[in-house]
Amino acid sequence: MDGNVFHSWSAQDLIDPIDVVSGSGATFQDRAGKSYLDFAAQLVNLNLGHQHPRLIQAIHEQADKLSTIAPAFHNDTRSQLASLIVDAVGENYGSVFFTNGGADANENAVRMARGYTGRQKVMSTYRSYHGATTTAITLTGDPRRWNNEPGDGGVVHFFGPYCYRSPFWATTEQEECERALKHLEDQIILEGANTIAAIILETVVGTNGILVPPEGYLPGVRALCDKYGIVYIADEVMAGFGRTGELFAYQNFDVTPDLITFAKGVNSGYVPLGGVILSREIQKTWSTTPYNGGLTYSGHPLACAPGVATFEVFKEEKILEHVKDLGERVVRPRLEAIRDKYDIVGEVRGLGLFWAIEFVKDKQTREPLVAFNASGADAAPITQFSAYCKEHGVWPFVHGNRAHITPPLIITEDELNRGLDVYEEAIASLAA
Amino acid sequence: MDGNVFHSWSAQDLIDPIDVVSGSGATFQDRAGKSYLDFAAQLVNLNLGHQHPRLIQAIHEQADKLSTIAPAFHNDTRSQLASLIVDAVGENYGSVFFTNGGADANENAVRMARGYTGRQKVMSTYRSYHGATTTAITLTGDPRRWNNEPGDGGVVHFFGPYCYRSPFWATTEQEECERALKHLEDQIILEGANTIAAIILETVVGTNGILVPPEGYLPGVRALCDKYGIVYIADEVMAGFGRTGELFAYQNFDVTPDLITFAKGVNSGYVPLGGVILSREIQKTWSTTPYNGGLTYSGHPLACAPGVATFEVFKEEKILEHVKDLGERVVRPRLEAIRDKYDIVGEVRGLGLFWAIEFVKDKQTREPLVAFNASGADAAPITQFSAYCKEHGVWPFVHGNRAHITPPLIITEDELNRGLDVYEEAIASLAA
Ligand SMILES: Cc1ncc(COP(=O)(O)O)c(C=O)c1O
Ligand SMILES: Cc1ncc(COP(=O)(O)O)c(C=O)c1O
Repeated sequence: MDGNVFHSWSAQDLIDPIDVVSGSGATFQDRAGKSYLDFAAQLVNLNLGHQHPRLIQAIHEQADKLSTIAPAFHNDTRSQLASLIVDAVGENYGSVFFTNGGADANENAVRMARGYTGRQKVMSTYRSYHGATTTAITLTGDPRRWNNEPGDGGVVHFFGPYCYRSPFWATTEQEECERALKHLEDQIILEGANTIAAIILETVVGTNGILVPPEGYLPGVRALCDKYGIVYIADEVMAGFGRTGELFAYQNFDVTPDLITFAKGVNSGYVPLGGVILSREIQKTWSTTPYNGGLTYSGHPLACAPGVATFEVFKEEKILEHVKDLGERVVRPRLEAIRDKYDIVGEVRGLGLFWAIEFVKDKQTREPLVAFNASGADAAPITQFSAYCKEHGVWPFVHGNRAHITPPLIITEDELNRGLDVYEEAIASLAA
Repeated sequence: MDGNVFHSWSAQDLIDPIDVVSGSGATFQDRAGKSYLDFAAQLVNLNLGHQHPRLIQAIHEQADKLSTIAPAFHNDTRSQLASLIVDAVGENYGSVFFTNGGADANENAVRMARGYTGRQKVMSTYRSYHGATTTAITLTGDPRRWNNEPGDGGVVHFFGPYCYRSPFWATTEQEECERALKHLEDQIILEGANTIAAIILETVVGTNGILVPPEGYLPGVRALCDKYGIVYIADEVMAGFGRTGELFAYQNFDVTPDLITFAKGVNSGYVPLGGVILSREIQKTWSTTPYNGGLTYSGHPLACAPGVATFEVFKEEKILEHVKDLGERVVRPRLEAIRDKYDIVGEVRGLGLFWAIEFVKDKQTREPLVAFNASGADAAPITQFSAYCKEHGVWPFVHGNRAHITPPLIITEDELNRGLDVYEEAIASLAA
């Protein structure tokens, strides 16, 4: 137990959390004074790093002005953030519905798709995470769903593309793309196209593997949605706000979703905030009919203030350029070298500052180094990797048989290299 | 439309929200400089009023120290708030699971009840509000549920006590209590007692009528829960944190729930925060088995800081004493006089600073002044009441055929009387 605090996703008697007392940029410190390079950006939300002075300043100013006001009022800061977001995605979109985090953003996107189409079903992929309220956890395609079933009776799962472990017996990226779209259309038809309100996709799958979609996949999904009158929801909670080198990840893929959900990077999680960006077309559904959703803290001014500052910092510090540069110039070549050097590294993949290293027992068979959903002793190699990194001052992100590289986007090249050094040492010690 | 902001529960083209620029204590101001006495405490969350210096100071201090850290770490401020909460409810309880608001608090309470009992069904009352994520809105017993059905397939609604409009043909409070318990037990038996995980009740029903349970009702529910192995969840999102004159409303009623959900008043909504208080017994379920829920911002430090300050302010400013005093010495006699004076006032009821005035067409038949779920022209008298109050500088809370009195708990006696003067004038003009 951690005193009287009940922890997310944890066996309460088996945890012994470290006591974090401070943070700055890409590092944080525990009470004993030990410093960690944050290669996880906490839960991949701290896009502008710990204690960014501009975001902290925005919180101070808003706190002094007006910490909170109910959603029914007009509030300048809230409106400003909504406009910045809509301007960044272009004229297809009309407004933003703010929530407290990612789960309720997805819940509301599904509500909007159902309201707009008058249909009930929503399709989502295996190997996905969409949050933990009832509809969001049912959408989720990972083991965290299992103990929360049946949940939302309208959810149907399908297989998305995953080139390294193709569920479609594909051998090239192009084949993976074509077969994934064929599989999806087959399933749409068999589910009954006119019963399906929405397809929700993490633009780049995050926690479940940093799965970058093959070229053409997302435009193909868009075409299927258009063909069958289905709403396309892009879950950009983890991939959005610069993680991939574009403000939103879908902007890498020549596609226009109908609804875009976000959270995390919008204000680096300094204050809980999430939301849904609505297309003008879908928004019209509630022009003269009341929207059937709401929450006490929708558009919370104190949460929106560091969101506004986030846009300023992205511009001034050229965050997107920095992310693209580090991703292609530093991370990609280093990870590819690591992959070529170590037998236990099966694949490395990603873009921007959003990367995964997939560990295998055998490069030929691609058998994962730890089995799907393994825990305890069965997950020992990953635990060992993680322990090595922590001991050497790098806080890693590990999940399944993978290590992810998802640091704050403001990380310096030196810090990034230092973190990758430690990751590589940990891999070497694992390989030995 | 309000620019690019999509509003909760609203027809977007029909709104024209006022622009609030500042607030202090029990009042807030629009851009034109007009001041409103906040008789709604926003959404009944601003228990310590607008911009309380101690809460603002706590935000400043925490922002400078460490604005956020992931739930998996230990954090002092988070632990301190959890301990203060657990200390306030006594040794039956062991820990707090923090969420972002009320809806996800209730979602997690239901998840806990299901996990603990291994059963699926949850019973909640008609005339209730529990939030707007899928399980929370399905629990909700008001029209906001209708457009969100079917939702969570495990929810069953029953009738709670409502003395003024008894669903049980009762004529006294004691009869209402006995019959409500008989009705509930009958329904438990017919649903299959061993299929029911939990009963969730707003301790005092808030938005749906400030329904104070008759003496003996909640202990009777507790006894039924014990008899059938059902978890008793108290939704204290609106009623908690001093609204009724006790820290938690259940503390007025000689009863011990298994799980208590809260949000709003815990930090007056200055930063989004909610949570579930777990009994030691239920908490044990996840001693060595991982809990099957979580969220990125669980136990957010910046949200917990004004929560800690809230406990200090409650003590130093003797908030509970103030609420009890104003409720009994000022509100009750004034409302009873209003009821006796005006034919359109059928009943007044409440406790602490949590009161409703129920408007009727006829005192004998008790026919509501506006019909259930009326809107537009059908709700004209309530719209007129509301407009009168706003014009005269009081921001009212109206719902259905009622006006509520739910100001910030720090309201002064003078302010309270001024607000009640305007409420009475509005009633007089309505009666005329
Ligand atoms: C892709 C994605 N969607 C949704 C969520 C849920 O967000 P939250 O934890 O704020 O509810 C997450 C959280 O990790 C996520 O990664
Ligand atoms: C009793 C009750 N429960 C739950 C909620 C939902 O809280 P939130 O709007 O923070 O999700 C509310 C909100 O008004 C409430 O009054």
